[in-house]
Amino acid sequence: MGRQFLEITEKKEVDAIISHVAAEVARARAKTSTSVEKVNVNEALGRIASADIFSALNVPPFDRAIMDGYAVVASDTFYADENNPASLIITGSIFAGEFPSHAVDKGSCMGISTGAPLPKGATATVKVENTAEYTEVVEGKKLKKVRVYKPVAPGENIMLAGSDIKRGERIVRSGTTLTPRETGVLAACGLNVVLVRKKPTVAIISTGNELIAPGADLEPAEIYDVNTQTLSDSVRECGCIPYFLGIVSDDVEEISGKLKQSLEAGADVIIASGGTSAGVGDLLPKVIEELGEILVHGVDIKPGKPFIFGTIRGKPFFGLPGNPTSALVTFNLFGAPLLRTISGISAQNHEECGRREEKRTKAKVAQRIFSERGRNEYVLVNLVAMKKPEEEAPFLAYPILTGSGAITTLSKADGYIFMEKGKEIIEEGEAVDVELFID
Amino acid sequence: MGRQFLEITEKKEVDAIISHVAAEVARARAKTSTSVEKVNVNEALGRIASADIFSALNVPPFDRAIMDGYAVVASDTFYADENNPASLIITGSIFAGEFPSHAVDKGSCMGISTGAPLPKGATATVKVENTAEYTEVVEGKKLKKVRVYKPVAPGENIMLAGSDIKRGERIVRSGTTLTPRETGVLAACGLNVVLVRKKPTVAIISTGNELIAPGADLEPAEIYDVNTQTLSDSVRECGCIPYFLGIVSDDVEEISGKLKQSLEAGADVIIASGGTSAGVGDLLPKVIEELGEILVHGVDIKPGKPFIFGTIRGKPFFGLPGNPTSALVTFNLFGAPLLRTISGISAQNHEECGRREEKRTKAKVAQRIFSERGRNEYVLVNLVAMKKPEEEAPFLAYPILTGSGAITTLSKADGYIFMEKGKEIIEEGEAVDVELFID
Repeated sequence: MGRQFLEITEKKEVDAIISHVAAEVARARAKTSTSVEKVNVNEALGRIASADIFSALNVPPFDRAIMDGYAVVASDTFYADENNPASLIITGSIFAGEFPSHAVDKGSCMGISTGAPLPKGATATVKVENTAEYTEVVEGKKLKKVRVYKPVAPGENIMLAGSDIKRGERIVRSGTTLTPRETGVLAACGLNVVLVRKKPTVAIISTGNELIAPGADLEPAEIYDVNTQTLSDSVRECGCIPYFLGIVSDDVEEISGKLKQSLEAGADVIIASGGTSAGVGDLLPKVIEELGEILVHGVDIKPGKPFIFGTIRGKPFFGLPGNPTSALVTFNLFGAPLLRTISGISAQNHEECGRREEKRTKAKVAQRIFSERGRNEYVLVNLVAMKKPEEEAPFLAYPILTGSGAITTLSKADGYIFMEKGKEIIEEGEAVDVELFID
Repeated sequence: MGRQFLEITEKKEVDAIISHVAAEVARARAKTSTSVEKVNVNEALGRIASADIFSALNVPPFDRAIMDGYAVVASDTFYADENNPASLIITGSIFAGEFPSHAVDKGSCMGISTGAPLPKGATATVKVENTAEYTEVVEGKKLKKVRVYKPVAPGENIMLAGSDIKRGERIVRSGTTLTPRETGVLAACGLNVVLVRKKPTVAIISTGNELIAPGADLEPAEIYDVNTQTLSDSVRECGCIPYFLGIVSDDVEEISGKLKQSLEAGADVIIASGGTSAGVGDLLPKVIEELGEILVHGVDIKPGKPFIFGTIRGKPFFGLPGNPTSALVTFNLFGAPLLRTISGISAQNHEECGRREEKRTKAKVAQRIFSERGRNEYVLVNLVAMKKPEEEAPFLAYPILTGSGAITTLSKADGYIFMEKGKEIIEEGEAVDVELFID
């Protein structure tokens, strides 16, 4: 059997190469109108605004009462108190949704509901709590009046047209992830459609003669393909759309055909797993060199040593190890940052607004961990909350020591500890940082 | 205009009432098969397993090599070293996806690829790195042989059938939120469909004569309905499906009709906004009393005082204030916990696994804040990261002081500070907890 010939690159150099390509792709996407789509605001939750959004109207569109009470000329109430209430004639009532039929003059007022438009002439609303209605007979006619026991200043208990949002005001910044708060502001401005960034399409290929899709019958020597599933779902979590290319056997023609197919279908990124080491039947590197450029082949980490990164016709290409755990770890280390950059969902973590995803926690190691000499190692761990959580380390971290082929490793792991090259032992009880798998 | 007659309940009592109803509804749902649905694993990300899931097969299904190399009888290599390699006859090769045509006997071996089934007789795999192939001529015949320079123990570099997952083993626990790791384990076991909890349906009604749906033309005295949008999206974030009942005018018959319609359509929860205070045209409490039971009407918090909670034919009903900010704050305080309980997505925060959502942060108050006497107050704040983050408070919190009708309050707010009854002032520079809006 052949030997492995990899040119090992240091992880931080790999990070730099990928981040450079990610920035270039993101820039190129920002320039094309094809990376933008119009969606209903009702389906826009979690999407990313592709441009600044401005309001076409004033919110509120008219001066309105923000309390139930009476619309008055404020100066009529200036000297009112419990002993000397102001007395005003009630000339009518305005309910929310109705437009006032007449104006309010000095000495008169109108009953008004929260949200109703303020009649002309009125400059404030007196809260109902500070009033009492009564009837006065003037020249034989019953007159509805109200006593006002507290003064109001002009502008009190009313909201002026445009005081919330002015026509022409920017309401959502380009690049903002739309939460219920932003979709609410869009609704307030009467918008029911919004321009958002199109989600990048990520083609996913699993290579391996032994692989078969879940749901099909298992023949001897076959195993079910795991990576299509884990990578698709991880791609979704990065704000992208997976495009399934399915399982490809270890055949140059077939792999090459699938890659071309994915590019023609408009894939923005390609992720293949399996076929990255230099053993028998591992043909991926050859195919990539034919179609594009290999920028990284081999990285100084474990698991994930035979990792490939390159470009095919300008599109980023990731070649991940076939082993499901190694594939997911290398995806999280190298694939996820690039996908987040080009989908734009990374932005929200860096906003000044203060929302932060906690992706790291402190933990104490539950048992001694050994690392392979000369390798940056990522040790998967299972976290258990301490009965008496300590401020500096609320969790105990148990290393997951199952063989590198184990699939259960995936579901047991809550995150990983990074052991830098040169660090060969972590002692029991040592406090470490755990990078969490956040889903 | 009428006065407000609310029987104010303390917030912690309201929490207890709602949590009791939530637990009852969740229990009732757990008993009915109609609250379960079968989905493709490929569409199961983020869904919640409705029952324990067991593997119907061994993973891996056969003993397999986890290294490229040679399948050997381990004892043949026991005394091998650099100077005295073991020499074995190569009787063939096995690639991944192929089934071995013959067994390995003592003194012989077969080339084997990572993932290929181990041939009968073989008990370990020797890594290709520790070998060298050569040709020997024996009785005029060329014989392919390999020198093994390092011993292997039985079981080394192989993975036994079922060593990852045993047939009958539980692979996903009931109530687990499916992440890429769980969907990967399902795929490994050949499953392409999975039983998950059906998402609860939440009917959403906005009441108010002045409201009109975004996208429609605005007539005088009308404003756009914000709450349908913010509440639908918030409901989605709680793992539920919004069911739109649209805008209802302040009319007993119409409101009552919509509520009945939503129950007939199978709504699990009803959320109405507007029409909760006792002012003119506020009819919701009347309608609820006719159809069901009011458990809470009025709570000692600001904003949100006229909050209603009750049940209609056993289904939880929330009556939120019409003001968009107040509606969203009361939804987050009272509605979200109930919805998370019945959808099941709360479970993941309490799992022993250690994944925790950080929903709270420390901040220093940027300017003095006053609260209304005798009210528990929730002050919306905007957070700005400190230039020199302090360990105990990485953010500065700016209170958002816009009028209570402001919609922009929503999009500016990152979270809120709770000012308990009796606390009337927070001084500038005081450190406070900020409950974050996490989206």
